[in-house]
Amino acid sequence: MPDTRGLIDRQLEADLAAVTGPAHVLVDSDLRRPYEVDWTRRFSGPSRMVVRPGTVAEVSQVIRLLAGRDVPLVLQGGNTGLVGGSVPGQPDPGRGAPVILSTSRLSGLGPVDSVSAQVTAGAGVTLARLQAAAHSAGLAFPVDLAARDSATVGGMIATNAGGLHVLRYGPMRAQVLGVEAVLADGTVISRLSGLVKDNTGYDLSQLVVGSEGTLAVVTAARLRLVGEKPQRIVVLFGLPDTTSALAVVDIFRRKIDGFQAAELFYDEGMELVIEHGSLSRPLADRHPCYLTVEIASLEDPTPSLMSALEDLDVPDTATAVAIDAIGAERLWAYRERHTETVSALGVPHKLDVTLPVSSLADFEKEVRREVASVHPGARLILWGHAGDGNLHVNVIGPAADDEGVDDAVLHLVASMHGSISAEHGIGRAKTRWLHLSRSDSEIATMRALKFALDPGDILNPGVLLTDQRLTAD
Amino acid sequence: MPDTRGLIDRQLEADLAAVTGPAHVLVDSDLRRPYEVDWTRRFSGPSRMVVRPGTVAEVSQVIRLLAGRDVPLVLQGGNTGLVGGSVPGQPDPGRGAPVILSTSRLSGLGPVDSVSAQVTAGAGVTLARLQAAAHSAGLAFPVDLAARDSATVGGMIATNAGGLHVLRYGPMRAQVLGVEAVLADGTVISRLSGLVKDNTGYDLSQLVVGSEGTLAVVTAARLRLVGEKPQRIVVLFGLPDTTSALAVVDIFRRKIDGFQAAELFYDEGMELVIEHGSLSRPLADRHPCYLTVEIASLEDPTPSLMSALEDLDVPDTATAVAIDAIGAERLWAYRERHTETVSALGVPHKLDVTLPVSSLADFEKEVRREVASVHPGARLILWGHAGDGNLHVNVIGPAADDEGVDDAVLHLVASMHGSISAEHGIGRAKTRWLHLSRSDSEIATMRALKFALDPGDILNPGVLLTDQRLTAD
Repeated sequence: MPDTRGLIDRQLEADLAAVTGPAHVLVDSDLRRPYEVDWTRRFSGPSRMVVRPGTVAEVSQVIRLLAGRDVPLVLQGGNTGLVGGSVPGQPDPGRGAPVILSTSRLSGLGPVDSVSAQVTAGAGVTLARLQAAAHSAGLAFPVDLAARDSATVGGMIATNAGGLHVLRYGPMRAQVLGVEAVLADGTVISRLSGLVKDNTGYDLSQLVVGSEGTLAVVTAARLRLVGEKPQRIVVLFGLPDTTSALAVVDIFRRKIDGFQAAELFYDEGMELVIEHGSLSRPLADRHPCYLTVEIASLEDPTPSLMSALEDLDVPDTATAVAIDAIGAERLWAYRERHTETVSALGVPHKLDVTLPVSSLADFEKEVRREVASVHPGARLILWGHAGDGNLHVNVIGPAADDEGVDDAVLHLVASMHGSISAEHGIGRAKTRWLHLSRSDSEIATMRALKFALDPGDILNPGVLLTDQRLTAD
Repeated sequence: MPDTRGLIDRQLEADLAAVTGPAHVLVDSDLRRPYEVDWTRRFSGPSRMVVRPGTVAEVSQVIRLLAGRDVPLVLQGGNTGLVGGSVPGQPDPGRGAPVILSTSRLSGLGPVDSVSAQVTAGAGVTLARLQAAAHSAGLAFPVDLAARDSATVGGMIATNAGGLHVLRYGPMRAQVLGVEAVLADGTVISRLSGLVKDNTGYDLSQLVVGSEGTLAVVTAARLRLVGEKPQRIVVLFGLPDTTSALAVVDIFRRKIDGFQAAELFYDEGMELVIEHGSLSRPLADRHPCYLTVEIASLEDPTPSLMSALEDLDVPDTATAVAIDAIGAERLWAYRERHTETVSALGVPHKLDVTLPVSSLADFEKEVRREVASVHPGARLILWGHAGDGNLHVNVIGPAADDEGVDDAVLHLVASMHGSISAEHGIGRAKTRWLHLSRSDSEIATMRALKFALDPGDILNPGVLLTDQRLTAD
């Protein structure tokens, strides 16, 4: 058997090399290794080889070659995912390890069209490069993420990336005017003309967004840009509870056009960040809850901010305002340093959940009770995006392979009609809990769509939907 | 045969009546008639009967009954479509006339959730009622249309309705957080929890948006609302050409946060509207091209408007500004009265196309040449949404059944990478031209999706995709 496999793989290597050139087929284990482990280092699996096609035509040829041999593919962009969706899992006993298709060489970036405020970007273009191109034309790309130097357009589309400005501009889905993509049979679909209005049948581009590489390989996208907003104000509020924070969000939404971020965190996180970073205290007193809001606009937002502050019941001593870049960065630090601070305490169980905004305050209380009950002594640090109902639940204490707290928290989320994944996706990590967010009917419908477009389960098998080949019929 | 059909239909009537109550199964031809003719009166066809279920459970039972008998359904909301998508076509020789399923009784409207700025609306809720509910909570629904008193939430989702504010808020698709829908086998899918972020697999709600009733019956939707923007300014510019109008759009996009409409029209339309409506001339002189822009914001937009006007090369004599409601209505009239004015001249051939914004100026010149060449003496009146590249092409002269001009214009659109339908959809009217906007691969992919979800072609057969039963395999 090993000999047969070796022979097959050598032929596959030669055939792929004929498509992409031998430099772009990586077989040596040292070269493959960086592609086989994900950013968290929690997820990894073996691959047969890595192929890096440089054009959509090459992607199509590669997929035809692999599909014809029943060899599965794992798709990889910047490999910054957190749920194991971009690296191999355990090899399929029947089909063996997958080939990793890296989109890194699909890095063409077209000129910014400032009349339509759009740009066409290859799947391998990083977010940082896209942002720089938009900026040089006096525009901005509406999605921003901490992983901007590595995360790519293709991966952000496959996972429907979120970030800080969803409140104002929506997630990646809202920026995608169309994609160029290769289906599991090698068919190329191209929707790059950038039409804002196009009611001519099913929106195949939107179907691909968030499908985690299971329906198609995105090779390029036509993306929406927005005008830059130079007038920026950041405000940090100290508040008694989550309900008060949501009241601030409500008033800001009604009163301030340029309202674009509302980041929520709590006393335990603030104190850890201050201690870990040796930061000065931003407000005179400690508060149970904090909210960082950001406004960015073309017009001077000061009058409407003053009007909103008058409507709030927050004392001056619990409010810090920054109107310049240095002050803004200083205030943002209390929220942004949560991730590194928590990681310094140990290996956190990181859950990324959304609740209906109207249930967020109840959830915050319930999740504290639930974690204390399941794992007494665990440390719980919460932060998130108040405007979207998205809370990052970080638990330190349980062993890495003890999923008891994860299971309890995700069940609590489901009981309150939330989603078990706000931004990160299902990947390989959360497939066992998918039924908490999606009904049997929905999962069956997803399977039917997957089977319609990828009947051989070639694209990212084991991601999102498991056992596709056994149950779709 | 007629007797058999009559017997089958009587049994069907009884079975449907057992689900909805006899008052909601309309068999009498006088009662059926209003459902069998569309708003344009160009499209009509016979139905067996009309059924008006009042709950999602009833919709599911109705669909199971019909699918079990291989009886096709036509779905109907407010019946304000313009492409024959909501009324029967010619009866299928094998299956006979369809049953019309009216969603008018699915008219539940939930309370406005002002914390999350969302509302749940039944498919049968009219746009006007939705707008009024949002307004009473100090919010607004972002989509507005002339047919607001009749158009329903379900129909607007099925057709991905556009309207005046797409430039700012996107089309109906961008407002849909989730749908409740019934699939062709009676399965109910419910995504009404209103989660802004939910990355747990394929977005079935977005797949249904714009599918023209061919994939599912939408029974309700969770919809996004936005803050009301009380400070409104309307400006009418007289301009030398389309290129100048697009330059205004570009500057307004960069300089003014509250920019929300940019409506384009031309000298021939302006002169007809002035004459037909006995209106006074809004500017001292005639101009080849006009642009109506609207700004609405919370902050006072005057300073940024002044700054934008300084950047423009438009003389004061070619600029009219309205800062109050009466003035705004007066300026809007020159654009809004185009439809009635053109209808008064004859029966227009109405084409609704989008071009990439960067090609819009070229298209405007080319379409004049093309129409004059195909039908010398035809009158061509153009207007549209400059920010979206959407132009409404109205041609008066050719007979109603002479599609020569339509065919030439749609081919021209395709040659310039535009879409043959910006807002109206494909319906029954444009199926013969679908290939101009969608590649063979895309049409095959759409067929595969249709077949996966509705293998019996029960839902809206003949709409969007024709001959589904013959070719899907």
